[in-house]
Amino acid sequence: MKEIYLDNSATTKVCQQAVEKMIEIMTEHYGNPSSLHKKGYEAQKELEAVRKTVADFLSAEKEEIYFTSGGTEGNNTAVFGAVGALKRRGNRIVTTSMEHSSVIESMQKLEKDGFEVIYINSFDELANAVTKDTILVSTMAVNNETGFINPIEKVRKIIDKTNSPALFHVDAVQAFGKIPLKPKKLGIDILTASSHKIHGPKGAGILYLRKGARIIPLHYGGEQEKKIRPGTEPLPNICGMGEAVKNLPDMNKELQFMHELNTYCREKLKDISNVHINSNENCLPYIINFSVEGIKSETMLHYLEEKNIYISSGSACAKGKKSHVLTAMGLSDNLINSALRVSFSRYNSKSDIDELVKAVINANNTLAKIK
Amino acid sequence: MKEIYLDNSATTKVCQQAVEKMIEIMTEHYGNPSSLHKKGYEAQKELEAVRKTVADFLSAEKEEIYFTSGGTEGNNTAVFGAVGALKRRGNRIVTTSMEHSSVIESMQKLEKDGFEVIYINSFDELANAVTKDTILVSTMAVNNETGFINPIEKVRKIIDKTNSPALFHVDAVQAFGKIPLKPKKLGIDILTASSHKIHGPKGAGILYLRKGARIIPLHYGGEQEKKIRPGTEPLPNICGMGEAVKNLPDMNKELQFMHELNTYCREKLKDISNVHINSNENCLPYIINFSVEGIKSETMLHYLEEKNIYISSGSACAKGKKSHVLTAMGLSDNLINSALRVSFSRYNSKSDIDELVKAVINANNTLAKIK
Repeated sequence: MKEIYLDNSATTKVCQQAVEKMIEIMTEHYGNPSSLHKKGYEAQKELEAVRKTVADFLSAEKEEIYFTSGGTEGNNTAVFGAVGALKRRGNRIVTTSMEHSSVIESMQKLEKDGFEVIYINSFDELANAVTKDTILVSTMAVNNETGFINPIEKVRKIIDKTNSPALFHVDAVQAFGKIPLKPKKLGIDILTASSHKIHGPKGAGILYLRKGARIIPLHYGGEQEKKIRPGTEPLPNICGMGEAVKNLPDMNKELQFMHELNTYCREKLKDISNVHINSNENCLPYIINFSVEGIKSETMLHYLEEKNIYISSGSACAKGKKSHVLTAMGLSDNLINSALRVSFSRYNSKSDIDELVKAVINANNTLAKIK
Repeated sequence: MKEIYLDNSATTKVCQQAVEKMIEIMTEHYGNPSSLHKKGYEAQKELEAVRKTVADFLSAEKEEIYFTSGGTEGNNTAVFGAVGALKRRGNRIVTTSMEHSSVIESMQKLEKDGFEVIYINSFDELANAVTKDTILVSTMAVNNETGFINPIEKVRKIIDKTNSPALFHVDAVQAFGKIPLKPKKLGIDILTASSHKIHGPKGAGILYLRKGARIIPLHYGGEQEKKIRPGTEPLPNICGMGEAVKNLPDMNKELQFMHELNTYCREKLKDISNVHINSNENCLPYIINFSVEGIKSETMLHYLEEKNIYISSGSACAKGKKSHVLTAMGLSDNLINSALRVSFSRYNSKSDIDELVKAVINANNTLAKIK
């Protein structure tokens, strides 16, 4: 049975170019980038080449790119770092109730520490939420469970109107490489992304920090990453991520391809009477969230894995907990308990969708329904 | 010219077994360990197998092993985590003036936050330094610049006598895999280690936390690593580290081999009149710190790299700053400014030392001396 991997928002297969680069780094350019000799310099050069690749990709300056160990650390650094730097200028933080756990739980910690955190459910609430003593506005660009695309430009405009000192953080873990996100153009102060969502290895991430914006670090130690992220750089991973970025397909062509896959999948799913599609048509086409009413998410996951088909019941990081995103969207418990997420990558094809839909129909006919 | 890499305390070449395992993980078992389907479960199984390998190696329980992104993050997590958990029970922290920057700078941050940090210069000062309101004692097992081995058992005994709530953290980044360090036997509460010092990849580390000891996390997000280190695990790196641990040579045999290399190197260096050996004979034999009086460290490094020989002037993480370790040892500025560190691994041989010593003698004859 062919493996059909449709869980690319959880993680992706590492592309061959990344693997090859990593082997080269580990066996030839294995020096410590901080070492003062040639082996160190070689490693440093590799590191800086990736910084340039990422900066160019984001239309940013090289000096604005910092490497992290991944999305969670990046989001933690952004949130705690911004709040730490600005805490004397205000006490209010604005975010949404649909963020990734690495933002939501950081916010809960800050609430414990005495900060006022406003969780909006819709961007219509944003103008009232951001006040002049707001020090951070943090939102994801694309929701990881539904593919919902947030109005980044609108957020920037609202922050500008308030005359607040707020830094604007965008968690771009699901958006990076998939939709155009030029932080300078969009007025983003801090942007975070992760390697393993774009066919790079797990264990590397990107933090864009606008020149002039200041955050305090989460880690203390050496001089690496201008002290924003000290510690020996995970060079194999960073260089693997660099290759993953370089090998991203043309974004528009890829979006077109994803639209095709998405439409194809939707049309097929719509023919199944008890399927309810939770992602709307404005969502990022890489993701479709849908519910098969009457069949619990986990039951369906396990049925599908028997057919070598891999999808998700929501965020991998939430591991079986009830989705706070679908809850915030106002979905019924019935739909939440049967929700599934399909997420595509360039390695998928229409025949993968055929197999998925066939299996869902079989499951529907085979599995006992819950009322 | 053959490459002679004698900077193994800065970083090591990744062993072939680790590279091969990482390729397997990135191309076959690339699932997210938190995913609920079989691809996730496979990844989770790989992760837990490494946890077992590490636990067995340390004679610890599997539940006591946490994975981090490396030594700096591990040390930060240990120091801030212990202090965060115990801050209501005391305000005093004891460490040494010879720690790695990831401990020293964390301590400086804690001082800013109002904690009293005592930096001892010698373990003779320890009994007076640890009081009943001490909440953390943190020391490295082996110094990264000199190879000096610290008296871990003595520290434990002193802590026990004070009846303090102190947790005992040992930074074992340079010691792990080189000297026997069974945390339970030695009474260590938290032990940290790094993958890339033992022929594993950069970007993974180990945190041992004694069952019953509690620290607060530095990162917030998913449920990974029992919330002590949330975020998608860097599985390729962790599995590479697992292979590195599995392929560590027998510790006693290897120590014997290092003693041979060390003695051979010392004997040869002693014949050079202006060489002063800073590491004493009780130091870990993997490391020799010595000064070639009259030749600045950096000048020598660059001379040697032309011969394809790589050594260090001190800690890679301090990148050119004056060594706080040699300063604390009371060395003269002359010796500090000309200090060099040679650090061996199992990939070295006596012929590497022959080449090194030949080059040092040539440098001595060629380079202009400073007074």
